[in-house]
Amino acid sequence: MSKSSTVTLRENPVQEVISAKAGGLTIHGETIIVETDQRIELVDLTNRVMEFVRQFNIREGIVSLWSMHTTCTLFINEFQTALLTDIKRFLEQVVARDAEWMHNDPEHSDCDRMNADSHLRALLLGHSLTLQVSGGEVVLGQWQRILMAELDGPRARSLRVQLFGVS
Amino acid sequence: MSKSSTVTLRENPVQEVISAKAGGLTIHGETIIVETDQRIELVDLTNRVMEFVRQFNIREGIVSLWSMHTTCTLFINEFQTALLTDIKRFLEQVVARDAEWMHNDPEHSDCDRMNADSHLRALLLGHSLTLQVSGGEVVLGQWQRILMAELDGPRARSLRVQLFGVS
Amino acid sequence: MSKSSTVTLRENPVQEVISAKAGGLTIHGETIIVETDQRIELVDLTNRVMEFVRQFNIREGIVSLWSMHTTCTLFINEFQTALLTDIKRFLEQVVARDAEWMHNDPEHSDCDRMNADSHLRALLLGHSLTLQVSGGEVVLGQWQRILMAELDGPRARSLRVQLFGVS
Repeated sequence: MSKSSTVTLRENPVQEVISAKAGGLTIHGETIIVETDQRIELVDLTNRVMEFVRQFNIREGIVSLWSMHTTCTLFINEFQTALLTDIKRFLEQVVARDAEWMHNDPEHSDCDRMNADSHLRALLLGHSLTLQVSGGEVVLGQWQRILMAELDGPRARSLRVQLFGVS
Repeated sequence: MSKSSTVTLRENPVQEVISAKAGGLTIHGETIIVETDQRIELVDLTNRVMEFVRQFNIREGIVSLWSMHTTCTLFINEFQTALLTDIKRFLEQVVARDAEWMHNDPEHSDCDRMNADSHLRALLLGHSLTLQVSGGEVVLGQWQRILMAELDGPRARSLRVQLFGVS
Repeated sequence: MSKSSTVTLRENPVQEVISAKAGGLTIHGETIIVETDQRIELVDLTNRVMEFVRQFNIREGIVSLWSMHTTCTLFINEFQTALLTDIKRFLEQVVARDAEWMHNDPEHSDCDRMNADSHLRALLLGHSLTLQVSGGEVVLGQWQRILMAELDGPRARSLRVQLFGVS
């Protein structure tokens, strides 16, 4: 029984920027970096994603956002200081940081970040969003914001954005 | 520190109905409305989504469902009266409505709906589904139903459906 | 008030293997089977999905994974024996198996599996993943693994994989 985690290996690393076109369909992928300052932090990425999509001439399609990390997640909710405090408090309540998690026990785990809570909170939020693009813009309701939850910061986090559609 | 939530603005509103075609690929988007009667209510959208997909001649592709609201979510589960009661009870247990959430406190929040619980329950369920289409129909298992969770009703809710594929 | 669950019927069953091509776009769908040995079991599907994608000449696109079951889910996390134990323990804590769920009560439910806990745990994890493909390979971070959570095994589970992109 290994104390280590399995590493995921691609034959080639993901390209920073890549585009493909075929028969009127355009696919464009990019990696973006988000810096965080706290252990648990909620970052509003809405404007950044909306601006990313607007620069391409993709009228109808989808845009996929993917966190490249296990302890950094993406989700939709309202962006209000009071509510963000409630979300953090809820995550801290539903998964206790100081319970006796095996992932935090050197006898069973070679991870020295002691971040079992971060992994378990990530289960609840998910690591990706697949949004619609219509009329050249991301489809979102009036109060919907694209939020990133840093669950084990501070760190520099990589997100991959892939736009897929027709112009 | 603002008591208000950030508003999401597109340059143009989402079109009620829109289609695009390029090189054999068809993309079709529509807004559908679902009326709810209770504060927490689970609505089975499966037949409506299946009929929506069947009217287009899209053989292979995907269909995206997107709730345009922060307190109205989409998920997959079984549709049985007893189980729906259990799901509602679980949501009420895992997030207490009457805890001292800051989003419900007029000192910190200008939201008068007192619906912190709705926002927190929505975190757990998610706001969208991206389903496969094959043979002209949605791919679902025998007991899988496409369910909408109204978490702060009654209201009229908007969902956007986008079908994406080849005929 | 019925004790039964609604059945989802397609006009035709999902084809085991199907491909479509149009204007440079390829869509390929397949059903894969995963056998489980325990009631709650976490299975690492990463290598299987990566190999599936590599055999096609799809350079840029997406790959959708869909569990065909209500009590079998798909999610992203790290694969380490200690952490998997923590995940199972967390799922068992957050939804008690022996609470008085109506789905387990023969007076209200014709389901004889007594698996309300499995349905409720599935709510938290979700039934599908939509991943990016770039450079002919699935886009995943170094520690990200594609995991299946069997929540009511042992059973043979069907997953549908759909690859969608340009070569």
